[in-house]
Amino acid sequence: MQFVKDFKWNKGMKASQLVEGFRSLGYQSIELSKASDIFMKMKHDNAKIFLTFTSNMVTSGLRGFFAQLIRKGMADVIVTTVGGIEEDIMKSAGEKFRVGRFTDDDVELHEHGINRVGNILITNESYMRFEDMMGPILKKLYQKKKRWPISEMLKEIGLMLDDDDSILCQAAKKKVPIFCPAITDGAFGFHLYLFQKKHPDFIIDVVSDFGNILLSTSQDERKAIIALGGGISKHHAILCTLLNGGANYAVYMTTARSTSGSLSGATTDEAKSWGKVKDESDVATVIGDVTITFPLAMIAALEKLDEEGLLDG
Amino acid sequence: MQFVKDFKWNKGMKASQLVEGFRSLGYQSIELSKASDIFMKMKHDNAKIFLTFTSNMVTSGLRGFFAQLIRKGMADVIVTTVGGIEEDIMKSAGEKFRVGRFTDDDVELHEHGINRVGNILITNESYMRFEDMMGPILKKLYQKKKRWPISEMLKEIGLMLDDDDSILCQAAKKKVPIFCPAITDGAFGFHLYLFQKKHPDFIIDVVSDFGNILLSTSQDERKAIIALGGGISKHHAILCTLLNGGANYAVYMTTARSTSGSLSGATTDEAKSWGKVKDESDVATVIGDVTITFPLAMIAALEKLDEEGLLDG
Amino acid sequence: MQFVKDFKWNKGMKASQLVEGFRSLGYQSIELSKASDIFMKMKHDNAKIFLTFTSNMVTSGLRGFFAQLIRKGMADVIVTTVGGIEEDIMKSAGEKFRVGRFTDDDVELHEHGINRVGNILITNESYMRFEDMMGPILKKLYQKKKRWPISEMLKEIGLMLDDDDSILCQAAKKKVPIFCPAITDGAFGFHLYLFQKKHPDFIIDVVSDFGNILLSTSQDERKAIIALGGGISKHHAILCTLLNGGANYAVYMTTARSTSGSLSGATTDEAKSWGKVKDESDVATVIGDVTITFPLAMIAALEKLDEEGLLDG
Amino acid sequence: MQFVKDFKWNKGMKASQLVEGFRSLGYQSIELSKASDIFMKMKHDNAKIFLTFTSNMVTSGLRGFFAQLIRKGMADVIVTTVGGIEEDIMKSAGEKFRVGRFTDDDVELHEHGINRVGNILITNESYMRFEDMMGPILKKLYQKKKRWPISEMLKEIGLMLDDDDSILCQAAKKKVPIFCPAITDGAFGFHLYLFQKKHPDFIIDVVSDFGNILLSTSQDERKAIIALGGGISKHHAILCTLLNGGANYAVYMTTARSTSGSLSGATTDEAKSWGKVKDESDVATVIGDVTITFPLAMIAALEKLDEEGLLDG
Repeated sequence: MQFVKDFKWNKGMKASQLVEGFRSLGYQSIELSKASDIFMKMKHDNAKIFLTFTSNMVTSGLRGFFAQLIRKGMADVIVTTVGGIEEDIMKSAGEKFRVGRFTDDDVELHEHGINRVGNILITNESYMRFEDMMGPILKKLYQKKKRWPISEMLKEIGLMLDDDDSILCQAAKKKVPIFCPAITDGAFGFHLYLFQKKHPDFIIDVVSDFGNILLSTSQDERKAIIALGGGISKHHAILCTLLNGGANYAVYMTTARSTSGSLSGATTDEAKSWGKVKDESDVATVIGDVTITFPLAMIAALEKLDEEGLLDG
Repeated sequence: MQFVKDFKWNKGMKASQLVEGFRSLGYQSIELSKASDIFMKMKHDNAKIFLTFTSNMVTSGLRGFFAQLIRKGMADVIVTTVGGIEEDIMKSAGEKFRVGRFTDDDVELHEHGINRVGNILITNESYMRFEDMMGPILKKLYQKKKRWPISEMLKEIGLMLDDDDSILCQAAKKKVPIFCPAITDGAFGFHLYLFQKKHPDFIIDVVSDFGNILLSTSQDERKAIIALGGGISKHHAILCTLLNGGANYAVYMTTARSTSGSLSGATTDEAKSWGKVKDESDVATVIGDVTITFPLAMIAALEKLDEEGLLDG
Repeated sequence: MQFVKDFKWNKGMKASQLVEGFRSLGYQSIELSKASDIFMKMKHDNAKIFLTFTSNMVTSGLRGFFAQLIRKGMADVIVTTVGGIEEDIMKSAGEKFRVGRFTDDDVELHEHGINRVGNILITNESYMRFEDMMGPILKKLYQKKKRWPISEMLKEIGLMLDDDDSILCQAAKKKVPIFCPAITDGAFGFHLYLFQKKHPDFIIDVVSDFGNILLSTSQDERKAIIALGGGISKHHAILCTLLNGGANYAVYMTTARSTSGSLSGATTDEAKSWGKVKDESDVATVIGDVTITFPLAMIAALEKLDEEGLLDG
Repeated sequence: MQFVKDFKWNKGMKASQLVEGFRSLGYQSIELSKASDIFMKMKHDNAKIFLTFTSNMVTSGLRGFFAQLIRKGMADVIVTTVGGIEEDIMKSAGEKFRVGRFTDDDVELHEHGINRVGNILITNESYMRFEDMMGPILKKLYQKKKRWPISEMLKEIGLMLDDDDSILCQAAKKKVPIFCPAITDGAFGFHLYLFQKKHPDFIIDVVSDFGNILLSTSQDERKAIIALGGGISKHHAILCTLLNGGANYAVYMTTARSTSGSLSGATTDEAKSWGKVKDESDVATVIGDVTITFPLAMIAALEKLDEEGLLDG
């Protein structure tokens, strides 16, 4: 039996000690400490970890953290949306995004060619730079073959990038596949379209990539999901675990509510009705902004896993 | 100058009168009445209307309403996710979903082969029925041609269905294209995958479908967005209007917050910074469950548009 | 067994027909239709109805609706916060609030002496008018007696007002007590304070008013709660029903979440653990903006109760 | 100009380093780092700090943290609701609350005499213990005087408690007044009522306590607000700063939304329209569960203030 304890600050408090204090604090802090525990169990149990996130998290500085987690062996399969892939590529070319304000004047920003994502600002130049990069990339791909399953294409692109903080780059190095079922839903799609107009035999094979994610794990393997935010990234990963007998571990971190029946807000309990996670699985749903909750919960897990020697170089 | 007025019930009050009262009521009711006005303006201005929704709305009874709106000419382009397409097909074959409770025991449901979506329940049998239908459908498609842009495939399937309440069926009849950029993210994807394994020359061409949505409108045309919920459905439509010079009208209805930088929670103001909607466009963001806010706002618009003779048969 | 049905618009659709359609629609629309049913059951069962709301709802046009509900016999006890009482008094003197925008420039508003409540604007003049009214009101009260339980004071003030749309006025006429446990938390408190400085024997007796709400019902009586929004208004009503054996009916309408352990977000299920509502009670929690959900659910109930002759003049 | 930076974990990372990383991370993490900065500025500028919180935070382990903050000089005035005061008293007598689950069966809990607050459980025994304590406490107070402004009563009770982790105890020692405008809204109110029935000259003077909070600061003094959660605690503090010329610093931490016009969800921007905070004030609104966001932001500030020698014993 766990009791609520009076929380107190100690000088020089580590992030992991804070999470330790959360265990007996209350409400979402308790859920966050559970999430942190489950991150550890995933590794202890040698589970295959599916990490999913939405594009806006790559817009943020979590991009470097995701790359670090891939390097450390905390993510075995990635599922995300194309906006994040575009921005990972831009950033690997040195593009910098600015910290702005949620209340910036959007009409004025537009006049200055600045695009707002919450309190982060991206210039039109960053997108133009991306455009410049896509031409040579697609040419190289086409020279290699004509029909590309998405995850194979993303691996190939990852190998062309030279940035340790890049998700694509680290994933390619570590042989971690990146799935992105809606690859055309962004500037990337526009460039694919223009290229295909000139090269009609250039094909993005979404269907065969379904096979790739399906076979990325198996019924027998222990499986774990870390779903940051919702949308198709989350859904695609749990669809895969569902078809492979359900996940053994699941952590959902989101601001979405369960009250409107959306998959984004669906809890780890709802997931049990579907067999997306096993009935007896270890699960936690943490409500809150992922830029706060995820680093905190993950760092506490990394500290201990590092001590145990369970992290990769 | 508009003043707040004391709202009062009158016997036999129509839904449209309620929305009229909302105009001077307060908070989201005011925003809802604005949304209703903008629905009318879209038609008055002869704008091309992009209607986007998430799968869970098709799980709900909004499915029949969407079909009705297509028939009435209130939607010229549809963007959605594949779960909704699967369920539209199931329902067109007579499958019925049950009303449940948000607090139903998920492990127990799982034992009974029942899947929960909020307070709606879907049996495994419904999915098996869908499986049975997909075989013949894919065979027919393959006989016709080998390489399918998604929207063309969905139109073809729509023509095979015989159900006035079906979104696919009505859309096919009215030549309203349905875009679904992540077509593999569901049971549909699994069946595509199995079929392609037997028929490797069967190709879903996502890239050329990008061209289809891009060319579904133009810089010169007046454009309108009705985005119900978030995710790639919302994003894909506004990406298209962005590339065509920005929308003139936009209504976002969602429960997502703008505070975490997600596209799902992004407001119509944020959209201006990107040029997704024009600086001087007519926009409204209504926070609330779409199953309540959308029928209410749309019905009030339909009543008036009907009087004006602006609805199709 | 209730099935999801395809929702459709019919010409001239009444608000009550819309709610009827909600019954088989999905997500919060289903919960709203349940709430509407429970409103009817409250009357059918002759329960004592506790209606609670936060001040911002009186700022909005719901004020007139609350007054109408009191007149119609749909509220037997009111619990609210003092801001709403102040604004009810202002409005009864003809003060008008303006419809503004959530995104109005607050610094500019401040320069113009305008105060913002979401998308509603209140001028400083309205508060000055309130100040002018409070002097004579307090004088009259003091002449009558020196020690005032809050609800008795509010009744006395209600009798001084002459406005059918006033909550205080209608409540006084119908002998519906208004409880406001934090009477000093607003401009009202400031005027009480100034008055007491001159008249130290003038006492607001909060403690004896606890007896008044406690004895406003009994263990034997059937009890119902309609809690709009959260805060102490909601808590005070359920504290009273708890001490009287628990409510038989409860409808909570709110935007607050249950995930942070706040009373505002606490569901009707959590209420059962406390005995705030009885284990076997009829309850519904509707998530959404009250200015939309409450009129809709209540109007549908009023239509039927009116037909059944269960509403007062 | 601040740029987004790739966030990375370093071994042994301190909580304060994490917050440092948040500065360039994105979304609410950025807002949290601003909040942390403003906590420091409050002390650097020698502002009077109003700390407000809702009862559920005292239910949680934040209780001990609040007591520590009072001792360290990070709170000069406290405003809260009565539930928290009751629980502070219970806990000072050794009562322990249990960590439960959000999904516990509420009817079953009720049968076992257990009350749920989110994922925290309180037994009926804890309330009975409180009842036992209240008798002697009220007797002592009555012997001292008959008419009690609330904050003076709470100070007196604080002096009776012997628990360093008690908010009331630390506040009494440090001469930090605790305001609780709705003192009757809880079990405390019930005991006051029973006591007053026997001793009709026992009076809780809410009105004179308005004077106490009003005069707890001045126009000239620098003022700061830390509002955790919403409700009357938040409102009462900003009413006081409003009447004293507006706060110079304000941090709001909440899960409430601004979209429904509630004071709980009202942002620090909205506060400017009222003059609740000064136009040029330093403000931050952090959206998220306070049990996570507050310790994190405050700890980072405490570390630096401690180095600077600005914390009390």
